[in-house]
Amino acid sequence: PKEYEDNGDIIICQLSSKRKVTIQDFKGKVLVSIREYYEKDGEERPSNKGISLTAEQWSSFSKSVPGIEQAIKKMQTRSR
Amino acid sequence: PKEYEDNGDIIICQLSSKRKVTIQDFKGKVLVSIREYYEKDGEERPSNKGISLTAEQWSSFSKSVPGIEQAIKKMQTRSR
Repeated sequence: PKEYEDNGDIIICQLSSKRKVTIQDFKGKVLVSIREYYEKDGEERPSNKGISLTAEQWSSFSKSVPGIEQAIKKMQTRSR
Repeated sequence: PKEYEDNGDIIICQLSSKRKVTIQDFKGKVLVSIREYYEKDGEERPSNKGISLTAEQWSSFSKSVPGIEQAIKKMQTRSR
């Protein structure tokens, strides 16, 4: 798989055929994007379905990853 | 801060005044949402700006967290 987009964004991972996690430099600020893409005229384009986190928001987010794992388990138990 | 939304979704963390990470049970499937909210008629509502990951997508995503951290550092060095 490609490691960079044509515009220099770093491709971190493909979550599904249409969803990607990328890192971009937007006017000197690093953004972490989790976004769905669509194809138009043979080109892949970012859709509105997604979110771009600032480095600060990413930092709070990454700290809550263990909490997310716990909550998923809790939710899965609850729904059985 | 609240731990649950009125509809039973688990609130994991607040990324900014308008952005939240929540876990919801959607028709028996667990979804991890990172989303921006807006207020209408005194009620907070989810906007289109955001993404909801399936448990499977969350799993690939969480595995790439260390890679994201590395890429952020790489990007920050590049832009200086």
